Amino acid sequence: LASERPVNVALLGAGTVGAEVGRVLIEKRDVYGRQLGRPLNVAGVVVRDTSKPREGIDAGLLTTDAAGLLDDPEVDIVVELLGVEQPAVDWMKQAMSNGKHVVTANKEVMAKHGPQLLALARENAVNLLFEASVGGGIPIIAPLRRDLLANDVSAISAIINGTTNYILTAMTREGADFADALKRAQELGYAEPDPANDVEGEDARYKLAILASLAFHAPVQRDDIYREGITKLTARDFRYAAELGYAIKLLALASRVDGGIQARVHPVLLPADAPLAKVDGVLNAIQVEGDLIGRVNFQGPGAGFPTTSAVIADVLAAAQSVIGGRPSAYVSEDAPANLVPMAELITRYYIRLTVVDQPGVLAQIAKLLGDAKISIASVIQKETHEASNTAELVIMTHEAREASVQDALKAVEKLPEVQEIGNFIRVEEQ
Amino acid sequence: LASERPVNVALLGAGTVGAEVGRVLIEKRDVYGRQLGRPLNVAGVVVRDTSKPREGIDAGLLTTDAAGLLDDPEVDIVVELLGVEQPAVDWMKQAMSNGKHVVTANKEVMAKHGPQLLALARENAVNLLFEASVGGGIPIIAPLRRDLLANDVSAISAIINGTTNYILTAMTREGADFADALKRAQELGYAEPDPANDVEGEDARYKLAILASLAFHAPVQRDDIYREGITKLTARDFRYAAELGYAIKLLALASRVDGGIQARVHPVLLPADAPLAKVDGVLNAIQVEGDLIGRVNFQGPGAGFPTTSAVIADVLAAAQSVIGGRPSAYVSEDAPANLVPMAELITRYYIRLTVVDQPGVLAQIAKLLGDAKISIASVIQKETHEASNTAELVIMTHEAREASVQDALKAVEKLPEVQEIGNFIRVEEQ
Repeated sequence: LASERPVNVALLGAGTVGAEVGRVLIEKRDVYGRQLGRPLNVAGVVVRDTSKPREGIDAGLLTTDAAGLLDDPEVDIVVELLGVEQPAVDWMKQAMSNGKHVVTANKEVMAKHGPQLLALARENAVNLLFEASVGGGIPIIAPLRRDLLANDVSAISAIINGTTNYILTAMTREGADFADALKRAQELGYAEPDPANDVEGEDARYKLAILASLAFHAPVQRDDIYREGITKLTARDFRYAAELGYAIKLLALASRVDGGIQARVHPVLLPADAPLAKVDGVLNAIQVEGDLIGRVNFQGPGAGFPTTSAVIADVLAAAQSVIGGRPSAYVSEDAPANLVPMAELITRYYIRLTVVDQPGVLAQIAKLLGDAKISIASVIQKETHEASNTAELVIMTHEAREASVQDALKAVEKLPEVQEIGNFIRVEEQ
Repeated sequence: LASERPVNVALLGAGTVGAEVGRVLIEKRDVYGRQLGRPLNVAGVVVRDTSKPREGIDAGLLTTDAAGLLDDPEVDIVVELLGVEQPAVDWMKQAMSNGKHVVTANKEVMAKHGPQLLALARENAVNLLFEASVGGGIPIIAPLRRDLLANDVSAISAIINGTTNYILTAMTREGADFADALKRAQELGYAEPDPANDVEGEDARYKLAILASLAFHAPVQRDDIYREGITKLTARDFRYAAELGYAIKLLALASRVDGGIQARVHPVLLPADAPLAKVDGVLNAIQVEGDLIGRVNFQGPGAGFPTTSAVIADVLAAAQSVIGGRPSAYVSEDAPANLVPMAELITRYYIRLTVVDQPGVLAQIAKLLGDAKISIASVIQKETHEASNTAELVIMTHEAREASVQDALKAVEKLPEVQEIGNFIRVEEQ
């Protein structure tokens, strides 16, 4: 396989996401090459200033010559990460016209020119992939284009702007007013110095235009989507909403209604127990309703570093198209998984015991656990039964080894004062 | 396009899922045909008893002759929905050896024979798709095979058995003991008459073997996965867990640890505010952690009718492979979306006003709203300000039309007793 020509990738842009994508593609090239059965090679990175070093990217790969890469017949995949409308659109068109697959994270480009660019991809029989344009690393574009395709989608409800969700979460938790919460978000880097694009709902509108177009198979123009930001919300509104049993969220909503599609971005009162009401901080979540699936929910980090996951997934999918033929070996056939025995698990344990209600019993149990290097985090004595002179003990341990716990419990069970080990349950801190 | 040969699909099995998949494929054949640009045709359905009618499936399609379909060169895609190990495995092998794509919902087959079958698919350059084998309609197999492929997955934590999650939810909410909760689940059809496969964690173990194999790119054998069911849990454990700040869930867990992979299915104490702790009833949820993505969460109905969504998504993906060439037109280029104006939105409204604190003001406001056919669901009078002689009113309306609300608020604003309309926020009941 090593003798086959590598799949060549050109990156347009090396800003935050672009530099990260380049670094990871290079750092993990062996892993990705094995997955594909063909080397995956970064052929060049188009930047404005080649003298500025990019961590993990060889300076020799940096170039200002976009046309050179876009017209290079050896380049198979073009990854557009400029983050602006132009020259992104023109370069994407040029790449596709030259028969190259295109991957983009550009929500503005896809919201404004998506249907036209998808048509061009179709004409040239290439892929145009844009998983990273909505929801950062959360898989949502591919699910809409593939996994949910059997459905008539009736509604999308989404939290797709991390900045506003962070601000609204702060307003909810701390009773802060909008201006204060925004200021803090800016200090922490969760909001831009000029936050208008986020807090006025424009960013969410771009993303909703993309999601709604895919879900309803018709181009939804962002200008046709009603938009209202979060700037008018006050601490009082959050207090009253909570009293009434509601949370306040900025939702992007699109649904089929009589006569067409209703699409809107605005603050909503959402019942406190609705799944989206519990999505806090910079997390994103997209809920899709369809005739077959019912309701399905995708949740995760909506921006920043995880975006790299989506961009590279698209690169790998495009590389698969370049290679063609056999589907890749997702499960290696010759390397069996090495499973670690349960005895080696290290976690915390909940232990419930029934013991004779007399002094010194806990000390004996604690000693046996201690001998096995299991330390106790907390003990609660519960429900003394006068008739049988027994009491129930609930012990939470610190982290311990499963084998030690099992052995210690065997010893504990033999104590004459221990009537029964009622249950022991492993703890999973997440 | 109509003159092109249709893509032919053969179904093996017409039990609950099989009959549903057949019915929907036939009912929505025009929609799916448009999406593919080629007709999608059900060529035959293999059943044991052809005399038993299946709703929505022409009796002429039913046959007992599996070999006839498996060897028919006109059949492109074979959908295996037998729900048992044999003859499913043999028929899948035969189909792939004959160059047909195979779609299956069979967790047992994929857990036991997945790596071998995937290798056979690779040899024959066909797709083997099994989205429906885990998590019902929730997209999780395709995300692991594609969208998250750029990641080194470090851990999977999943609620992938609806029966046990239903029982545990009932035990949590009602303080019920296991036997009672199981009995009720059986009465409601959420548990089988013989529930062992679910309540002993075997079903979850099959599914975890599939997920872990994909996530770690190595065959994880189900027998190597530690398994413990929920039968020993008591109402007392739930009470103590709640007191300590934990929920109890049956989790399927797989993670990379020193020396290999740890994989296990057993009840766990989970912090009450962990996302998986809030997944209740028959819902499923799968959480994946990776080096690029951080943590992402997929949630939805894990069984029953939604499974049809996953099976047909795989059929459509396989059909796409049959057709080859151009990617499908996900967004129609010529049919613009018909967006309904915001004025036509019908929803409930939260309205906050500052009014002069004197008798009769609310009556005047209520009259103006009533004239516009907006009825009030509740009113709270808040924070009277003695100094300014004003009070704050919070009104929740019943469903009303946006245009009417906007008009009515203009009239309300003109009342001399109304000092300010502080905010109005739309309500989204979900």
